[in-house]
Amino acid sequence: MYQVNENYLKLPGSYLFSNIGKKVRAYKNANPEKEVISLGIGDVTQPLVPAIIKALHSAVDEMAVAETFRGYAPDLGYEFLRNAIAENDYKQRGCQIAADEIFISDGAKCDSGNIQEIFAKDNTIAVCDPVYPVYVDTNVMAGRTGTYDAKTEQWSDVVYMPCTAANGFAPELPKGKIPDIIYLCFPNNPTGATITKAQLQEWVDFANKNGAVIIYDAAYEAYISEADVPHSIYECEGARTCAIELRSFSKNAGFTGVRLGFTVIPKELKRGETALHALWARRHGTKYNGAPYIVQRAGEAVYSPEGKVQLKEQVGYYMQNAKTIKDGLSAAGYTVFGGVNAPYIWLQTPDKMTSWEFFDFLLEKGNIVGTPGSGFGPSGEGYFRLTAFGTHENTLKAIERIKAL
Amino acid sequence: MYQVNENYLKLPGSYLFSNIGKKVRAYKNANPEKEVISLGIGDVTQPLVPAIIKALHSAVDEMAVAETFRGYAPDLGYEFLRNAIAENDYKQRGCQIAADEIFISDGAKCDSGNIQEIFAKDNTIAVCDPVYPVYVDTNVMAGRTGTYDAKTEQWSDVVYMPCTAANGFAPELPKGKIPDIIYLCFPNNPTGATITKAQLQEWVDFANKNGAVIIYDAAYEAYISEADVPHSIYECEGARTCAIELRSFSKNAGFTGVRLGFTVIPKELKRGETALHALWARRHGTKYNGAPYIVQRAGEAVYSPEGKVQLKEQVGYYMQNAKTIKDGLSAAGYTVFGGVNAPYIWLQTPDKMTSWEFFDFLLEKGNIVGTPGSGFGPSGEGYFRLTAFGTHENTLKAIERIKAL
Repeated sequence: MYQVNENYLKLPGSYLFSNIGKKVRAYKNANPEKEVISLGIGDVTQPLVPAIIKALHSAVDEMAVAETFRGYAPDLGYEFLRNAIAENDYKQRGCQIAADEIFISDGAKCDSGNIQEIFAKDNTIAVCDPVYPVYVDTNVMAGRTGTYDAKTEQWSDVVYMPCTAANGFAPELPKGKIPDIIYLCFPNNPTGATITKAQLQEWVDFANKNGAVIIYDAAYEAYISEADVPHSIYECEGARTCAIELRSFSKNAGFTGVRLGFTVIPKELKRGETALHALWARRHGTKYNGAPYIVQRAGEAVYSPEGKVQLKEQVGYYMQNAKTIKDGLSAAGYTVFGGVNAPYIWLQTPDKMTSWEFFDFLLEKGNIVGTPGSGFGPSGEGYFRLTAFGTHENTLKAIERIKAL
Repeated sequence: MYQVNENYLKLPGSYLFSNIGKKVRAYKNANPEKEVISLGIGDVTQPLVPAIIKALHSAVDEMAVAETFRGYAPDLGYEFLRNAIAENDYKQRGCQIAADEIFISDGAKCDSGNIQEIFAKDNTIAVCDPVYPVYVDTNVMAGRTGTYDAKTEQWSDVVYMPCTAANGFAPELPKGKIPDIIYLCFPNNPTGATITKAQLQEWVDFANKNGAVIIYDAAYEAYISEADVPHSIYECEGARTCAIELRSFSKNAGFTGVRLGFTVIPKELKRGETALHALWARRHGTKYNGAPYIVQRAGEAVYSPEGKVQLKEQVGYYMQNAKTIKDGLSAAGYTVFGGVNAPYIWLQTPDKMTSWEFFDFLLEKGNIVGTPGSGFGPSGEGYFRLTAFGTHENTLKAIERIKAL
């Protein structure tokens, strides 16, 4: 008689954004006349830029003719895209990453959820608190996190690294139990914080010294506006022996509904004789069948001269929103973080409201949807995330509404 | 210090089609003047039909304009596609499957690899022998299969159900150890065999009686040409309490490079109070981010009146190849199976050659690539798979070459 994976049953509640969706739908159903503005889930609103649209149409046309039709893609992605990434995202930044160390996928959410699979079940993970829920939840499903304490909202076998205003939202090197797998995300989701290259170098050194692996989520690197903020962990010396990097096209190119991402695993990253590159290649080859050809061509267009110009403008559009939100909330007396090198603004809830209280307050009084900080972990309690991915008009309107509350 | 998932290291050799690819590349490099014809990996060759191309272009245009741009898709797929599937693939065949029991994905390979994740690690799987390698390999990676015996090429904790000419390539109900999870694929890859509705009903009854779950891979149902061959397991009474069905758009619509598939989990499929539907929904919501909008619109076009007509013709094109191969090989004295309700022809190797010997013989003497039967399991030894997915011209040429050997 079959049994289910009991680890799934340990997961408390359902996935954060599903919960928010349910609350918003319920509110809209009860108040159909209200215009609700979402600065919540982090989905983009601007259409794909012309260079990408052109590449998509062109690839679709290729699929219509036998001579240029493409069936199964190479397991790890098309050369044209891997070469463009290696050149633009790495070589031009002084990082030594070869095209065949890049694994094309259908997005960073899948990669960040699946990457834990190549590690031993009894490895210990460390995460920032607050954190993107996928890292922890997928480790729960794999049975790697021990037992859940509903009171502390923490798992017994996870090392939590609090990130609050007190430490500038930068995690401190673990002092007690040394974790095996360290998830880091900079620019950070949800706090919008960054760390300097020198700070990241400390993590690389720590990982190399202790035999840990860093899973570095750089999904928001396109939003970095300040110098001395690393765009890739491979800017740090020694990262090739301790770090996996995850990248997304969702936010730099608006691919949330197009689906494309990639993972970098340097060939020197080994435990004994076993290269993690080989394990991930085996996983890709066995459980995945490649990103669509037309989507990989769209990804290539991101690195074309026109694509770069158009996307710089698109990122600028969102960063203008970030400034609108940050300045507006500051003027209204809120304590606000992030929004300078990241599309996320992280604010302290007023009047000691909990994060969910503020969510309800903002939804009901301002008809604005944001994301409760506590949904990202206990240290997110008392914080709230707004995203810069709305339209200018809605963002301005939302800030006016918040000011008027 | 992190450790790797040791289960990955237990996998013998690398994935079948990767191995074939390596051999073919080596041969081509050494013999650049030879024209190699592939009837191997099962990739399609015909371009996407006009109705699908039109839908793709139209969806791309929507992505170019803010008003119609689509970001994150609903976790489980767009309603328009799920409704089209429920209506056409199920309701019109008399199967009771609701749209919200359908989970859209980027292909049946991912689904067939990931579905094991929602089951307990100590569950026992049963597979046909020979079998599509993904079912077993993904269970190996999950640590569910025990130890590998290189001599028998079998795993200690897997129930193998031999399918050979002796039993008409139809697996027999397990008599000894009762498996928990039973993988069935009809029309079968690699043998091209089918079973009748009455035979499939026996499996459904067996599963319900013994508390087993059937994972039914119906990726090739569009190739069924004879009556009394079930297109879906839900044609059988009681399947809603014991069966998950996997479907693909790769072979019925040529989506191998487009990537789209779906999984059906009826809501009555439960262990105790736990619905497998809820577990898979949680997995999708946590580790997956939906199939691309433009691809889901292409999937919808598969069910449009023009799409249906055009795809019937495309499937007919490949089935003409199947007939060419089957008739040609029979005339040449080969013993041949499949090819009537499936795009696969399964032949017995001549002169007691092993499957890999025949692979090398065919590659070197005929410059034709096929798939060694033993790559699908020990009972595939002495067999060889050819696919009908080539062009008419290449298929005819390949058969002439084989006849001349």
